[in-house]
Amino acid sequence: MSNETKTQSPHHVVIVGGGFGGLYAAQALRKAPVKVTLIDKRNFHLFQPLLYQVATGKLSPGDISSPLRGILSPNKNTKVLMGEVTGIDSKQQKIQLHDEELSYDTLIVATGVSHHYFGNDQWAQKAPGLKTIEDALEMRRRIFSAFEAAEKETDPEKRRAWLTFVLVGGGPTGVELAGSLAELAYRALKEDFRNIDTSETKILLLEGMDRILPPYTLELSAKAKASLEYLGVMVQTGTLVTNIEDNLVTMRRGEQIEQISAQTILWAAGMKASGMGAVLAESTGVELDRAGRVIVEPDLSVTGHPNIFAIGDLANFPHQYENGKSLPGVAPVAMQQGSYVARLLKKRLQEKTLPSFHYNDYGSLAVIGRNAAVADLGFVKFAGFPAWLAWVFIHILFLIEFDNKLLVMIQWGWDYLSRQGGARLITNQSRQPPKAVEEEENHQTPVKV
Amino acid sequence: MSNETKTQSPHHVVIVGGGFGGLYAAQALRKAPVKVTLIDKRNFHLFQPLLYQVATGKLSPGDISSPLRGILSPNKNTKVLMGEVTGIDSKQQKIQLHDEELSYDTLIVATGVSHHYFGNDQWAQKAPGLKTIEDALEMRRRIFSAFEAAEKETDPEKRRAWLTFVLVGGGPTGVELAGSLAELAYRALKEDFRNIDTSETKILLLEGMDRILPPYTLELSAKAKASLEYLGVMVQTGTLVTNIEDNLVTMRRGEQIEQISAQTILWAAGMKASGMGAVLAESTGVELDRAGRVIVEPDLSVTGHPNIFAIGDLANFPHQYENGKSLPGVAPVAMQQGSYVARLLKKRLQEKTLPSFHYNDYGSLAVIGRNAAVADLGFVKFAGFPAWLAWVFIHILFLIEFDNKLLVMIQWGWDYLSRQGGARLITNQSRQPPKAVEEEENHQTPVKV
Repeated sequence: MSNETKTQSPHHVVIVGGGFGGLYAAQALRKAPVKVTLIDKRNFHLFQPLLYQVATGKLSPGDISSPLRGILSPNKNTKVLMGEVTGIDSKQQKIQLHDEELSYDTLIVATGVSHHYFGNDQWAQKAPGLKTIEDALEMRRRIFSAFEAAEKETDPEKRRAWLTFVLVGGGPTGVELAGSLAELAYRALKEDFRNIDTSETKILLLEGMDRILPPYTLELSAKAKASLEYLGVMVQTGTLVTNIEDNLVTMRRGEQIEQISAQTILWAAGMKASGMGAVLAESTGVELDRAGRVIVEPDLSVTGHPNIFAIGDLANFPHQYENGKSLPGVAPVAMQQGSYVARLLKKRLQEKTLPSFHYNDYGSLAVIGRNAAVADLGFVKFAGFPAWLAWVFIHILFLIEFDNKLLVMIQWGWDYLSRQGGARLITNQSRQPPKAVEEEENHQTPVKV
Repeated sequence: MSNETKTQSPHHVVIVGGGFGGLYAAQALRKAPVKVTLIDKRNFHLFQPLLYQVATGKLSPGDISSPLRGILSPNKNTKVLMGEVTGIDSKQQKIQLHDEELSYDTLIVATGVSHHYFGNDQWAQKAPGLKTIEDALEMRRRIFSAFEAAEKETDPEKRRAWLTFVLVGGGPTGVELAGSLAELAYRALKEDFRNIDTSETKILLLEGMDRILPPYTLELSAKAKASLEYLGVMVQTGTLVTNIEDNLVTMRRGEQIEQISAQTILWAAGMKASGMGAVLAESTGVELDRAGRVIVEPDLSVTGHPNIFAIGDLANFPHQYENGKSLPGVAPVAMQQGSYVARLLKKRLQEKTLPSFHYNDYGSLAVIGRNAAVADLGFVKFAGFPAWLAWVFIHILFLIEFDNKLLVMIQWGWDYLSRQGGARLITNQSRQPPKAVEEEENHQTPVKV
């Protein structure tokens, strides 16, 4: 048991999770008369919106991560603790870590989401998702190993399977990954191989809904699809993946069942709240939605527990839109919620109140490739190069450290000029080595069975 | 079996290893009338002299690595093959890979060395060495995890063990690691923790010989020692490590046996030729030295096999110094040997000859910390800030890609101004989780037993 549990004052705010939500809450409490402890399993903040660029070898992990201790070092009222929360005792106002307990006066839970296979957890090995640095390095390893294997493969059908990439999910991650992969295969790697022509690479983006980027307007979805197709990506909407076996994806489009052989299958669909949602529910009885997210009150607190908050991707905030739709799981929502809870706390300490949380939607941006993006800033929607420039500036603006901002800007500038990726390394060990394709498989366009 | 084995002309040069030696050979053959195949287990060239900066979180792996295909993409006569050589048939002039064979006309083996525990392989888990990106990430994980564990630890003795770092080996790697660790503990991390004072960190550099940096002059060794001590490193020369158990190092200094408790033990002593040395010996009968390196002819060929060469760290070249001492295992030797073999081949194809290989020693440099290095350029020896500047420029000069040069320069510039490290992430999985120290252990200064 550490010191925290013995001293009673000042007001102790425990923040679980060092993503956008947790970090913004901690920063906004910097000068408040409170003691802050930020707990994270990892020692760094990850700029998740750019994770797909690590997966495709454009950026290094260090470029999009900043040590939490470094970021919060100037906040003299803040302590960083690397650890994993295993339980909450809302009556005693304590949280349990593996080997210690911490008392809190206010608890802010911001542990986010992980990807999720709709009950098909066996797909995880075959089609890795993209939430952590390790996920991104695993994707990078698989992508570049596939080109290496294709270069060595002499059987044309097997080679085709090595050069086929299937991305499941047409949300921002799937779209950005597909665009980035297309630039890799059709541009950056074009001169690098001698036996294969990487422009023969097939990149298939599958989406269950009738259009990609469903949170955007119809018009922008159409533009995004056109941009992807221009880059060489095959976009198949209205297509549900029904099975993933090694190197074989089975999908259903209306009544039709199709199969495609692909050595590299990447998962960008589905997400589920982190386990902390269930821990919170067990301790407080709060209601969770189907994705395991905490359904929060208008002030982001947990029903019946005004001193416990859930924010960011972990929270389902149904109070803004008339149809009760939750806010999207994007960084700006988490940032604004983190700041809101900090402001609310400061008001409370002065025995004042604050109106309910309201998300200011400054728009959405997705990048599709060099010079191509779609932007929906509410008052104006645009696509192409202006949207791409906006995307670049907004992303760089929000990168946490000056150091990282500069590096990413230079990497992108260089990348833009040279069409090279700077971090195309195959490192770390395989979670599952890619298997050779079977002779009898068919590797051409999707085939009805 | 691939195409290579069927076509007979032009002259086929197979290079095994994409380090400095192999890469310089390939580059020098760029315009020669030969076909070149460069084989490496990895898909990237690693700038090994800066690996310790990845281990201490200053640089990202991508900053010191370049994809081999990207580097060699302009060389139209060159193919890159990712693979591992398992055997050589010098009679048939073929090499075996896992799943194919390749015929060669000339074979250049440049597979380098790995670290080596003098017959104590069980130390490998307890005291990781530094040869690969994965090694560096493992060191980085252990170093930063140790500070995190110390921050959480309430028992003062255990905390002391978490803040004790023992480096075994006072060659360039050990010296550079020690200097870099000292800057980390005593400067960069100083403001980041709340429970520990990182300036209490103990960094111990152990060297078996009577001075550190034995290849340098006595004077520079002394300056390096003084610089390290100024930074706060405890340098113990004439000290042999006799045992490494979890968190406990036993050493012998003269007649005295001492022990020290340390949670982080890093290995920078001893190296051994890669397995390709033994493969070469089996196929050609060539003599190996005690470290398993190939003893080469004055033209770097393998005795009795004028078309097989061993270069770089894998080669023992005893023809330059009167005492038969081999050339040092440093990047400039490998680079010059790679270029030499390429020149020799081009002469041979014109039925001309070339004098024996001679290494031009432009000097040695080792960095000790910010503003401190020792340099021995033959005609002039210097230490301190001028040596550090020379070191910075020479290293950046030789970084392979323009992109990397710029990035490393900026990282260092920023690091220099801000005294921060840019890549202090704890990633990748533990090979062996650090164990808790036992209660009864003694953690103070080395203790006689």
